[in-house]
Amino acid sequence: MVDPKCPFCRIVTGQEPADIVYRDDLVTAFQDIHPMAPVHLLIVPNHHLESVNAVADEDELALGRMAAVAKRLANDRGVDGTGYRLVINTGQDAFQSVLHLHMHLIGGKPLPFRMLGHEF
Amino acid sequence: MVDPKCPFCRIVTGQEPADIVYRDDLVTAFQDIHPMAPVHLLIVPNHHLESVNAVADEDELALGRMAAVAKRLANDRGVDGTGYRLVINTGQDAFQSVLHLHMHLIGGKPLPFRMLGHEF
Repeated sequence: MVDPKCPFCRIVTGQEPADIVYRDDLVTAFQDIHPMAPVHLLIVPNHHLESVNAVADEDELALGRMAAVAKRLANDRGVDGTGYRLVINTGQDAFQSVLHLHMHLIGGKPLPFRMLGHEF
Repeated sequence: MVDPKCPFCRIVTGQEPADIVYRDDLVTAFQDIHPMAPVHLLIVPNHHLESVNAVADEDELALGRMAAVAKRLANDRGVDGTGYRLVINTGQDAFQSVLHLHMHLIGGKPLPFRMLGHEF
């Protein structure tokens, strides 16, 4: 399912430009346009899912593929040895910005542990 | 595969105590012993995987299940409406602490956007 008003659906279908770094039958990955670290990619399911709250049993394969693709891209970008963080934000408390489920892959510099939340 | 020296393998197999909140054939979820927010759970594959770097094609199902279980637990804990963050740390730059792949589910209060890395 594609939502024609969703910016990430539009990237997946090629209607919106993006620096796409990976694509297969289930997921697409592209550069974040506001990178927060030397490596900052977004990995999304091709199918429109608003957030993790919308994940159904049949989406497990796409979600698992996202993690496998993260591993591959971390290796491609040379951060597999140094480390990287995968983050999926859902809803208001997590400041989810685009309502198409997306995984951030962030790496290339130390990501202080407080980033995980020690300073909440 | 179980690593008898791995603390999370020992939780999965019941050799180490933990406050387990979910368990199925592929994944186990339990309370983080150092919670950083009102809701802070860890979701792990039952199979020992050191990190995302060790994910193989056959692990995609367990990784997808972890996300589906996160959705269910966020709902159980009442943070699906307010929001939550899923985080997987890999390696030194991300300060991965236990060498058994684990997803943090954090919610129950606003998680400032800087936590994702704007202050790197």
